[in-house]
Amino acid sequence: MDSGDLKIEWARQYMPVLGTIADRFRKDKPFEGMTIGMALHVEAKTANLVKTLAAGGAQVFITGCNPLSTQDDVAQALDRVDGVTCYAKRGCSVDEYYSAMDAVLDAKPDITIDDGMDLIHRMHTSRRDVLTKIIGGCEETTTGIHRLRAMAEEGKLEFPVIAVNDTPMKRFFDNVHGTGESALTAIMATTNNLIAGKWLVVAGFGYCGRGIARKASGLGAKVIVTEVDPRRALEAYMEGYHVMPMNKAAEIGDIFITTTGNKDIINEQHFKLLKDGAILSNAGHFNVEIDGAWLNKNAEQIIERDGIQSYLINGRTIHLLAEGRLVNLAVPKGMGHPIEVMDLSFALQALGTRFIAEHHTELKPGVHAVPDSIDREVASIKLASLGLGIDTLSADQEHYMCSWDVGT
Amino acid sequence: MDSGDLKIEWARQYMPVLGTIADRFRKDKPFEGMTIGMALHVEAKTANLVKTLAAGGAQVFITGCNPLSTQDDVAQALDRVDGVTCYAKRGCSVDEYYSAMDAVLDAKPDITIDDGMDLIHRMHTSRRDVLTKIIGGCEETTTGIHRLRAMAEEGKLEFPVIAVNDTPMKRFFDNVHGTGESALTAIMATTNNLIAGKWLVVAGFGYCGRGIARKASGLGAKVIVTEVDPRRALEAYMEGYHVMPMNKAAEIGDIFITTTGNKDIINEQHFKLLKDGAILSNAGHFNVEIDGAWLNKNAEQIIERDGIQSYLINGRTIHLLAEGRLVNLAVPKGMGHPIEVMDLSFALQALGTRFIAEHHTELKPGVHAVPDSIDREVASIKLASLGLGIDTLSADQEHYMCSWDVGT
Amino acid sequence: MDSGDLKIEWARQYMPVLGTIADRFRKDKPFEGMTIGMALHVEAKTANLVKTLAAGGAQVFITGCNPLSTQDDVAQALDRVDGVTCYAKRGCSVDEYYSAMDAVLDAKPDITIDDGMDLIHRMHTSRRDVLTKIIGGCEETTTGIHRLRAMAEEGKLEFPVIAVNDTPMKRFFDNVHGTGESALTAIMATTNNLIAGKWLVVAGFGYCGRGIARKASGLGAKVIVTEVDPRRALEAYMEGYHVMPMNKAAEIGDIFITTTGNKDIINEQHFKLLKDGAILSNAGHFNVEIDGAWLNKNAEQIIERDGIQSYLINGRTIHLLAEGRLVNLAVPKGMGHPIEVMDLSFALQALGTRFIAEHHTELKPGVHAVPDSIDREVASIKLASLGLGIDTLSADQEHYMCSWDVGT
Amino acid sequence: MDSGDLKIEWARQYMPVLGTIADRFRKDKPFEGMTIGMALHVEAKTANLVKTLAAGGAQVFITGCNPLSTQDDVAQALDRVDGVTCYAKRGCSVDEYYSAMDAVLDAKPDITIDDGMDLIHRMHTSRRDVLTKIIGGCEETTTGIHRLRAMAEEGKLEFPVIAVNDTPMKRFFDNVHGTGESALTAIMATTNNLIAGKWLVVAGFGYCGRGIARKASGLGAKVIVTEVDPRRALEAYMEGYHVMPMNKAAEIGDIFITTTGNKDIINEQHFKLLKDGAILSNAGHFNVEIDGAWLNKNAEQIIERDGIQSYLINGRTIHLLAEGRLVNLAVPKGMGHPIEVMDLSFALQALGTRFIAEHHTELKPGVHAVPDSIDREVASIKLASLGLGIDTLSADQEHYMCSWDVGT
Repeated sequence: MDSGDLKIEWARQYMPVLGTIADRFRKDKPFEGMTIGMALHVEAKTANLVKTLAAGGAQVFITGCNPLSTQDDVAQALDRVDGVTCYAKRGCSVDEYYSAMDAVLDAKPDITIDDGMDLIHRMHTSRRDVLTKIIGGCEETTTGIHRLRAMAEEGKLEFPVIAVNDTPMKRFFDNVHGTGESALTAIMATTNNLIAGKWLVVAGFGYCGRGIARKASGLGAKVIVTEVDPRRALEAYMEGYHVMPMNKAAEIGDIFITTTGNKDIINEQHFKLLKDGAILSNAGHFNVEIDGAWLNKNAEQIIERDGIQSYLINGRTIHLLAEGRLVNLAVPKGMGHPIEVMDLSFALQALGTRFIAEHHTELKPGVHAVPDSIDREVASIKLASLGLGIDTLSADQEHYMCSWDVGT
Repeated sequence: MDSGDLKIEWARQYMPVLGTIADRFRKDKPFEGMTIGMALHVEAKTANLVKTLAAGGAQVFITGCNPLSTQDDVAQALDRVDGVTCYAKRGCSVDEYYSAMDAVLDAKPDITIDDGMDLIHRMHTSRRDVLTKIIGGCEETTTGIHRLRAMAEEGKLEFPVIAVNDTPMKRFFDNVHGTGESALTAIMATTNNLIAGKWLVVAGFGYCGRGIARKASGLGAKVIVTEVDPRRALEAYMEGYHVMPMNKAAEIGDIFITTTGNKDIINEQHFKLLKDGAILSNAGHFNVEIDGAWLNKNAEQIIERDGIQSYLINGRTIHLLAEGRLVNLAVPKGMGHPIEVMDLSFALQALGTRFIAEHHTELKPGVHAVPDSIDREVASIKLASLGLGIDTLSADQEHYMCSWDVGT
Repeated sequence: MDSGDLKIEWARQYMPVLGTIADRFRKDKPFEGMTIGMALHVEAKTANLVKTLAAGGAQVFITGCNPLSTQDDVAQALDRVDGVTCYAKRGCSVDEYYSAMDAVLDAKPDITIDDGMDLIHRMHTSRRDVLTKIIGGCEETTTGIHRLRAMAEEGKLEFPVIAVNDTPMKRFFDNVHGTGESALTAIMATTNNLIAGKWLVVAGFGYCGRGIARKASGLGAKVIVTEVDPRRALEAYMEGYHVMPMNKAAEIGDIFITTTGNKDIINEQHFKLLKDGAILSNAGHFNVEIDGAWLNKNAEQIIERDGIQSYLINGRTIHLLAEGRLVNLAVPKGMGHPIEVMDLSFALQALGTRFIAEHHTELKPGVHAVPDSIDREVASIKLASLGLGIDTLSADQEHYMCSWDVGT
Repeated sequence: MDSGDLKIEWARQYMPVLGTIADRFRKDKPFEGMTIGMALHVEAKTANLVKTLAAGGAQVFITGCNPLSTQDDVAQALDRVDGVTCYAKRGCSVDEYYSAMDAVLDAKPDITIDDGMDLIHRMHTSRRDVLTKIIGGCEETTTGIHRLRAMAEEGKLEFPVIAVNDTPMKRFFDNVHGTGESALTAIMATTNNLIAGKWLVVAGFGYCGRGIARKASGLGAKVIVTEVDPRRALEAYMEGYHVMPMNKAAEIGDIFITTTGNKDIINEQHFKLLKDGAILSNAGHFNVEIDGAWLNKNAEQIIERDGIQSYLINGRTIHLLAEGRLVNLAVPKGMGHPIEVMDLSFALQALGTRFIAEHHTELKPGVHAVPDSIDREVASIKLASLGLGIDTLSADQEHYMCSWDVGT
């Protein structure tokens, strides 16, 4: 095996859910005779999704969704897989990037799988020629979904798309545990800082914020939560965290992680209050949560280290990780979400794709949620892969659940 | 101060939210000229709700909702408060119980506050005479709400009732922290058992189950979670708990706590598997979760201790706390929910009652949710009482939240 | 079974180590023909120690070591046990107390077991007549040990005494877990307060302090540690606790627990800084850690509730639990240490007593440590009772441990 | 600043204790006129120790203690510092390595600082010429200390050496928190595995094992502890961990970390039981804890990835990180201990070195412990750097501590 195969194989063994689904696909061939076009980050975890789809009988054509996220050895290994053609190349030019995308579309996919809706966008603009054959698509990102919803509302989305994003499984595992662990790992591996004893500020107490807060606390940090919602703030207080506004947290914090989904969470007024050596990072999707533009414009001095920009402000140095981009992916040592978490997310993709293949005639053009049964099925397969059993309701218990006159 | 006043005063100082609301009521007199009829557990925490309503100008008439939960010294102290008449008496006969309830209704309340819908039920049956004046009611229990919904669906509920039960504030604090702490305290104070190191089985991973699991784990227990929902089971697994079906947990567990809301969670098949000395308890609303009837019928021997029934089964002894009733209330040392948690729940009651007083003309007969603004207001008052500030969204941030084209 | 037997039986089933030792004693009869005189708290856990010694062939004569800690039903049940005579009576007069002690000594014990050295003291003063037969004693308390050491240094202790107090087993389990859990349970059951979210101040970061801090934190409290030792303070900081001097903690804390073994930890200067409603308690051996005398003398008003004294100081009310005595024992709902922890401590007593019986000819008058092999044996029996196996060093590994030239 | 200076500066800001000591040294010049010879890992944290000594007036000559641990940019930056000469070079040949060491000795050091006793060893063998001037040395590693003790016992160690290794400060912080965090970070950053929910096996429940267990548990792992000592095993059980022998843990564990200081902890008999995909790593000093030699000899297939060796045994693949060497240092993404922890350890080095400079005439040849006052001083400086105050005993409290007659 060469290095690409080794990486794919490494991820494979920690992706039992996708493995179970691949076995089913191999037997059922739900994509027999179909072509699937994909634009995703081409790295080892994704490669296992691609191979799962190919095992289901699909001809898969894939390219990258970002020129910098492709791993060339993985791309080459994928291209050698039966039924898979891979056009992704790291560091390609803009022209090469879009040529690769067009090459995928030239294969006339029945189904598309997007991470940022690049393929779907192109099909509705310069490549409307391929709209004739398409039966549906899957889209993973929040951003992509929102743009698709806008298109759908204007009546411009011409086929059904499954929003593989907002399910309970994604929120619980991807956000709480995936972001929770990998953001902390990325910060520790990049800064060589100790977490124990530190004041760690988490902006936002949604699913990502909760995960980070609990795990940082588990490592011995004192966690400060900032929020705009009084109920979430009170929840954070009751779980033992410190609650305060950011302009107070700014004076205390050693390490900051933003998770709000909103902009300017740490901004000019806070930069001026930070302690010397404070470390700022973002675990939200976009790099808007920390106002890096202000820092780049106003700092007295800027120093670059691997994954760290240091700014001199009023005689104090503050550090911004990865330019405020998603810290678990964007620092040099970042590996994105842990494999096991992507196993669950890509399992939703694989079953969502099968759902389109089998039910597209029942689906109108527009954005559709992942059926709840698929979300639960992924949980069940994961439990089975762990050898964990659960209880089932007896008929009597089912009846009790529904009849509120009993037992009162 | 006599003992009743002392108990009320003790609770008062840990009920800052109700205190803030009482101050507002004292100034605004929202209940001026109104009569409020109540049937609740007459103990120190409740007394502070009653005094808050009286501070708002109401004439309050109150009796118990359970002959055994009344504390006579508190009842007498309440009766001495200006504007309050209290008819509750511990250990009263059935006749006395209903006479007291009728005495409350004789006062012709404008608003009722129920814990189990006893007053409302009576007003729709034997005391329809008082329906003419009533403008609305509040009901706290899950059971009461369900019976009221059934009545409403049949068109038989003749005035609006606020369901002070299912709000986020109740779920987060009453269930997670209130039940979580007080169930464990009750078990430890009753059994003199050590939690550290033990296998503690939590049936159900809803809000109550999560609270108990986290706190027991924080005391050093190894926690087993049983569930019927695969996603909740997987959540429990990811949080570090052990997941298995009850018939496997039955062989391992030292202490069991049921929180499912369903029946027969621990039943005949499990009793036979339990270890010698296993302790069973229930933190759900009803005593149906553990099949005590089977035990009482089939045990080779039954021994009674304070708050503990011990059953000899197949040569092994297993212990049931408080006959399987809500353990934090029903054991002799139980004090119900912690004061601070009832402060939040009764604050919802107080503001819900004011909402009826001020908006009854806009409300149709039927069951109404607590307005979200009231739920958030209670959180805000609590944060203020703790001196905790939070952030507010800037106009720019508000705009960013709503406009998904920005930043993508 | 009557109530005394029921209590003893309840404790018995959670004392597997003592049970294993009783089985051995029953077979080996190490105390055949011997008389053991005891002065201990006569309650259910102690009763199991007494029965264990009797199973070993001893004639046991026992009385209380404190008139208020005797449970009469347990005392009567003990007195009915073959080979046991119990003179303890709750609420006896001083004369009766010492008469009972003399009655124990009249039995001419070969070995004494003391909790506070009352028997040993009496034997060296008014009852020197019984010194002729005695071969040795056991003493459990820190205080007793220190007084015995002082006697020994002056050459006045006339027989060997085993100090069943300072072993690793006692420190790890009695202090960390026993005090840790039972102090918090006692506070929660007495005050009906919520721990989650609160500022809980632990004075002293020794074994007791660590246990309380970790468990309170596990329940959701924010823990402040006060210390006089910089290394312990830094340990506390690194474990995520807040470190500050008491005069700063006094202004912040909601609940205080002293565990230092020193006096005046919370004193006049702190009382004046406390928040309204602050709760003070002590988990150290003596009631000297909180200066209750000052409070009783200087408070503007004093209010008594069950287990709580409330003091009005400068318009603020502060609450002292159980007059500052050991909170897990001294509040009305307190049950002392959890049963499983006393199982370990009393196992040390039982094996220490056997050690005297078998080795007294090798022991000089004076205070002797529990042999380390006994301490480890208790751990091993406990692990076996839990069904837990551990590894053993291979000969090769033993050699590696000792020879530092290998592998470097 | 070039990259070496940037790295040194990065570490500097998280080393406040060394910074405080450097300020004192700059003023007191304790090493004025002295030469210090060093052989240490030449990277950013060490560089700050070197600069601290130079600030104290020393002429410092330094080389590496391992050809692979030198960072060339840091070495060059160090060499440019006034008073410092650095001979370290990454990847140097064996001849170059010892030439560099001789160059350090050619400077005729008054004091040596070793990490593995290379300098001291050389001075007692081929370079006895430099023994005439030396007044003492410091040694950091456990191994070095043991070899020095052996030399001392044979009367062959010719000057005093301070053992900067076994102090409470090292044990608490270096082991519990330094190893605890950095071992987990290294594993997560290398394997991209999720910790939450996993079975993580910690061999050994000493200081390192405790740190790893607590932090892994804080991230959501289920922790299994293996031990040979029954008391430590029982401690682990009481803290909520699972206790079992390794041959049982081997069948269950997902991730293994050895911390015992002994050999063959995971060996042939365990390899055959491991689950497919199990990950093995070592956080103990030497690579003897996991029997890699057996794996290399007996595996059916061996695959190499960055920092991971994968072995095929009986159809299952098991993974060994960094050839079983200290995982937090030896994997490509490893950065060794967190900076703040080395700040404490190097502060002990700096003050130990000063102690030799000022007290060497009082010290006999042999191995000497770090004076307890220095250990406490480091803790106090760290607390001061954090702005944390602690209490001090009053005269009255001091007296109470010593006089056991009071208060009993």
